[in-house]
Amino acid sequence: MTLNVGVVGASGFAGGETVRILSQHPKVNLNYITSRRLVGKYFHSIYPNLRNLVDYQFEEYKVETAQEKCDVIFLATPHGVSQDMVSSLLEVGLKVIDLSADFRLKNPIIYKKYYKKEHSHPELFSDAVYGLPELHRDQIKDAYLVAVAGCHASSAIYGLFPLIREGVIERSNIIIDSKTGSSGSGASVNESTHHPIRANSIRPYKMTGHRHTAEIEQELNLQISDTKIKEPEVKVGFSAHAVNLVRGILSTSHAFIAEDVEVSNKMLFKTYRKAFRGEPFLRLINQNTGVFRLPDPKIIAGTNYCDVGFELDHHLNRIVVLCTLDNLIKGTAGNAIQSMNIMSRFPENMGLEFSGYFPS
Amino acid sequence: MTLNVGVVGASGFAGGETVRILSQHPKVNLNYITSRRLVGKYFHSIYPNLRNLVDYQFEEYKVETAQEKCDVIFLATPHGVSQDMVSSLLEVGLKVIDLSADFRLKNPIIYKKYYKKEHSHPELFSDAVYGLPELHRDQIKDAYLVAVAGCHASSAIYGLFPLIREGVIERSNIIIDSKTGSSGSGASVNESTHHPIRANSIRPYKMTGHRHTAEIEQELNLQISDTKIKEPEVKVGFSAHAVNLVRGILSTSHAFIAEDVEVSNKMLFKTYRKAFRGEPFLRLINQNTGVFRLPDPKIIAGTNYCDVGFELDHHLNRIVVLCTLDNLIKGTAGNAIQSMNIMSRFPENMGLEFSGYFPS
Amino acid sequence: MTLNVGVVGASGFAGGETVRILSQHPKVNLNYITSRRLVGKYFHSIYPNLRNLVDYQFEEYKVETAQEKCDVIFLATPHGVSQDMVSSLLEVGLKVIDLSADFRLKNPIIYKKYYKKEHSHPELFSDAVYGLPELHRDQIKDAYLVAVAGCHASSAIYGLFPLIREGVIERSNIIIDSKTGSSGSGASVNESTHHPIRANSIRPYKMTGHRHTAEIEQELNLQISDTKIKEPEVKVGFSAHAVNLVRGILSTSHAFIAEDVEVSNKMLFKTYRKAFRGEPFLRLINQNTGVFRLPDPKIIAGTNYCDVGFELDHHLNRIVVLCTLDNLIKGTAGNAIQSMNIMSRFPENMGLEFSGYFPS
Amino acid sequence: MTLNVGVVGASGFAGGETVRILSQHPKVNLNYITSRRLVGKYFHSIYPNLRNLVDYQFEEYKVETAQEKCDVIFLATPHGVSQDMVSSLLEVGLKVIDLSADFRLKNPIIYKKYYKKEHSHPELFSDAVYGLPELHRDQIKDAYLVAVAGCHASSAIYGLFPLIREGVIERSNIIIDSKTGSSGSGASVNESTHHPIRANSIRPYKMTGHRHTAEIEQELNLQISDTKIKEPEVKVGFSAHAVNLVRGILSTSHAFIAEDVEVSNKMLFKTYRKAFRGEPFLRLINQNTGVFRLPDPKIIAGTNYCDVGFELDHHLNRIVVLCTLDNLIKGTAGNAIQSMNIMSRFPENMGLEFSGYFPS
Repeated sequence: MTLNVGVVGASGFAGGETVRILSQHPKVNLNYITSRRLVGKYFHSIYPNLRNLVDYQFEEYKVETAQEKCDVIFLATPHGVSQDMVSSLLEVGLKVIDLSADFRLKNPIIYKKYYKKEHSHPELFSDAVYGLPELHRDQIKDAYLVAVAGCHASSAIYGLFPLIREGVIERSNIIIDSKTGSSGSGASVNESTHHPIRANSIRPYKMTGHRHTAEIEQELNLQISDTKIKEPEVKVGFSAHAVNLVRGILSTSHAFIAEDVEVSNKMLFKTYRKAFRGEPFLRLINQNTGVFRLPDPKIIAGTNYCDVGFELDHHLNRIVVLCTLDNLIKGTAGNAIQSMNIMSRFPENMGLEFSGYFPS
Repeated sequence: MTLNVGVVGASGFAGGETVRILSQHPKVNLNYITSRRLVGKYFHSIYPNLRNLVDYQFEEYKVETAQEKCDVIFLATPHGVSQDMVSSLLEVGLKVIDLSADFRLKNPIIYKKYYKKEHSHPELFSDAVYGLPELHRDQIKDAYLVAVAGCHASSAIYGLFPLIREGVIERSNIIIDSKTGSSGSGASVNESTHHPIRANSIRPYKMTGHRHTAEIEQELNLQISDTKIKEPEVKVGFSAHAVNLVRGILSTSHAFIAEDVEVSNKMLFKTYRKAFRGEPFLRLINQNTGVFRLPDPKIIAGTNYCDVGFELDHHLNRIVVLCTLDNLIKGTAGNAIQSMNIMSRFPENMGLEFSGYFPS
Repeated sequence: MTLNVGVVGASGFAGGETVRILSQHPKVNLNYITSRRLVGKYFHSIYPNLRNLVDYQFEEYKVETAQEKCDVIFLATPHGVSQDMVSSLLEVGLKVIDLSADFRLKNPIIYKKYYKKEHSHPELFSDAVYGLPELHRDQIKDAYLVAVAGCHASSAIYGLFPLIREGVIERSNIIIDSKTGSSGSGASVNESTHHPIRANSIRPYKMTGHRHTAEIEQELNLQISDTKIKEPEVKVGFSAHAVNLVRGILSTSHAFIAEDVEVSNKMLFKTYRKAFRGEPFLRLINQNTGVFRLPDPKIIAGTNYCDVGFELDHHLNRIVVLCTLDNLIKGTAGNAIQSMNIMSRFPENMGLEFSGYFPS
Repeated sequence: MTLNVGVVGASGFAGGETVRILSQHPKVNLNYITSRRLVGKYFHSIYPNLRNLVDYQFEEYKVETAQEKCDVIFLATPHGVSQDMVSSLLEVGLKVIDLSADFRLKNPIIYKKYYKKEHSHPELFSDAVYGLPELHRDQIKDAYLVAVAGCHASSAIYGLFPLIREGVIERSNIIIDSKTGSSGSGASVNESTHHPIRANSIRPYKMTGHRHTAEIEQELNLQISDTKIKEPEVKVGFSAHAVNLVRGILSTSHAFIAEDVEVSNKMLFKTYRKAFRGEPFLRLINQNTGVFRLPDPKIIAGTNYCDVGFELDHHLNRIVVLCTLDNLIKGTAGNAIQSMNIMSRFPENMGLEFSGYFPS
């Protein structure tokens, strides 16, 4: 049986990757892609890497068309736009996978704090499932609305959830120092992404107050297991840098070891192996030899894999966690499609086990 | 039915790509990979992008093992090494696809001129088929020895063969100005590829006497059709530059329009469309709008596609031909596997229609 | 004695470099910089590399202010804008060094052909001196209007003029294949210079009809010495590619050896040595060993040097000429200031002998 | 009066930059450069950016020659080599500026812990002055042996010393997340710096146990002012990443606000302004607008400037400090020459106020 899907806002980088991966999915019939700006144009006119491979044409977005042509809709619309589209789509019985930030947070006060406006549909917050498949698999299964996790947030959460879950680290002073490529800034042009300006830089672009801080804390707090003391809550200091790269994020988390916890390398290996067991796309990377001993975006660019590694620093009683993923795939489109697979009872890795190429 | 294949010299960049693509080929059982240096190690220890996806281990190379385990052998050994291995492999009935330069040339004198030594097995020259599937499909079908075309040579030939075939251009003064990424220099380290030295450079590394000159001329001469005058022969001035990139080649050919030939854009479109008709991996790229109007390696990196475009310059009575391909895929491993498909009566595009990702 | 100078349009990349170099010139008092967009702002607010080093503020442009404060005005205004400003500046007795293309060409018909509009002040064509110091030193000395050579044009002319002057090459079929960094596209943003789109590309952005074709031909034709036959005229096929780099141009010229001329390496060395003798900023680079045997933009980025090298290709009866310069310095601001030095009877190399840093 | 200086080990990147900057210093006569590997070769054969500008030739190293020709010797020899050379140089009355790590640490136990061997001349530790001019100006003045600070260490210390000095932050849990370009790995080639492998990566290459940890702690501890409680000592968790860049380091320090200290932006501005007052090469970068609001290596590459900025994060009670410098200049050769200026009673900024170029 084939699933009919549509991608709204398919011209941006996130939408584009969703289209590309869906076009190669064995159980998907992608028969509706929309873009306000590009109605009537061919998808491959702006994604020429797909020339000869697909012949999709951008259409106008209408709920009726979506209803008629699709079972599942991916919203790759800008933040703030999705929230007004979702309810009409849900009403006509469609399942919605939203790639924007609109339905990730559960607390409208936190939403307002970070997004500086009231949400137009907070009543849907309880229906939305946070789209990080490894942590919300069971809820995603029956969800009608999935809010795909943010790319920076994913890279932080994948690296830290095992440590929070096992109570290994202090919760209230976690430092996350993130480095991202330029594709994270989207397809829209501005002075700061002008090649002569952006190339060869390491730009500290959001040191404090990054919106993904809220998601990271929300999700890590959920990982505090019942038998552990709930207080204090997880609080993270998240800082994002833009480096000279197009694809990929590396998050370096610096976490202090919790009081009275004995930590060894062996114990950390066990903690991560337990947390990642059976996960098709989470890989533990901690080699003793070779060039790529720890996670590096070079290795996962173009894939749905997330690589995690760690080092123990007795000097500062610190664990350094490295986590890397492709911001547009495992950080966006890949997790969206992995969620779709779960919702549709397809094998979870279907259409997602492509490898990147190396060296690139 | 599954084809059993082996890759000899699988640790280098060409061998690595061959392994990666074969590992995802639906009709191939890759059960023998060798590397002198890495016997016993896992393939993913040096190609960590394939961790979790493959679990090949490097073995020692022996003809007997090859015979026992394989139907087809890919030789990704250095230039000069293959020539001594091929006959023993052919003797035990294996088919050989050689990625090195050893059997590309048909003329031992030309071989010596460009490679500065006598070939050890010139008697095999007549058995070897030049591995450019689009030009030698029929011979490849029944070949036992395929000599995969060089990466620079491929990019030059794909762009120029339609013009030679139709007698559109002067043959004796074709300029080919090629630009390549650093992966073309292979996996071996030297001072010139040290990152601080190699980055941000445009290095004119081989302006004259490049070995691929010989292949290009040999193959383009074969394209002179019977009804045309055979003289003069094709002679090219090939110059290769290394640019700040890892993957991909762009060849810019500057060819003068032949006397008494009326050339228009329409006529050129027709010429290329005719030559590329039905070809699964040759794409004509000549857009009037957008950023990517002409071929750009950014678009084909990571794929088996070769993009060709042109511009007509009445000012100098010149045609500028742009041709781009991924040096390690369409320029090496991809054409090798496309040849294998032909030899094995598999659909020619089988296992090769993966798309690159964009932006990368 | 100090020279009072001003830079109009000082916010763009060309103007910015002019300001930077002038600020360190021992005989210059830079006391007027203008920008429509940035009146009142500090120069270092957009060129933070100069913070603490200069404290210029952008002013509004007025002829009266220019007259009052300056002896020489540099126009770093867009093409098409300078032509309406020059006459009023000349009228009040100022010397003008125009970095735009407006006064480079001598023939209004050619101007219209390449710039697609009538020039508003063709009567000034005869007053303007083409700002390539090495070729027009004597005229620049007494000039009131210098039209600084285009960056691509400079790289082509510096490489080829010795060969034209000595009658070594055929004139009517010279191929110039140029590669440039992204700073050549200026400070204005557009989709094609968006970092994720522009990075890792080799973009053939102007294969035919490039405006610098006209300058190159004009200037090379002037180099045909009296004793040589004037016909045929120099005609070049100029093609420009954008590579993954910020600073620098490398032009590869492919020229055919003229009939009846005996060419050897020795003869070419002599030809270039003769042409470059005494030139402070033209360097002949033809090493037998080392990584940097031929010109490479990596070596001249950030300097006023222009490096030229060559290889002789008997196979195609061709000379390959490599020429590299920094598009914003020797290709623009540096030649402007070198011209100013000549006009002001300063040592020609004054304020221009800074070295780039390596590796960068 | 001219100072006669020599550079030992002038072929490496650190030595090369020292030579380049000294060659342009108005009071220096550089008349001795050595390299074991390159005796008799010209400096510009490996630093072709200086062709035409200098004509130094590499000589063999001998104490006698150094004594005869020099007043000051710069040692740009590898770590572990300097320690055996210094005493003989001091004995003959030379002043030594050592760019290696050999004499930076004051405590032989710490030295052994981080460098894994006994120091051969610990008796010289008390003579050596740590070569960070801003912090040890008075001692450098009369020093005979200056141990130039490490590049990563400098970037950490410049950002943090004002906060330690004023008691603003907790001392025992400072996180320093550093990002560096590839020139930091030196001129020697290895697999990990091979361009196809190194490009487009973010490599976490030393997460724990980095040798500069010891210098950073030593120097920051010295900044604890007398009136403050001495305990606890400064302890830092230093982690170094290699990013896709050639020149420059950005260190992001995450420090927790000390108990009972009221911190505001205003107070932090005051703290940094006070610490940097009168410093020619330390710049505070905290703009409200523009692309470059915080320090970015793109802005300081090629210069002796060190840019520092900060953000206050009330959410985590954290101060984020950004500090960037050119690893080979302010991080090595520049500080060495700044120290030489101090020792020689030259103006401290002499020969060091060159600007980088932008964009690069």
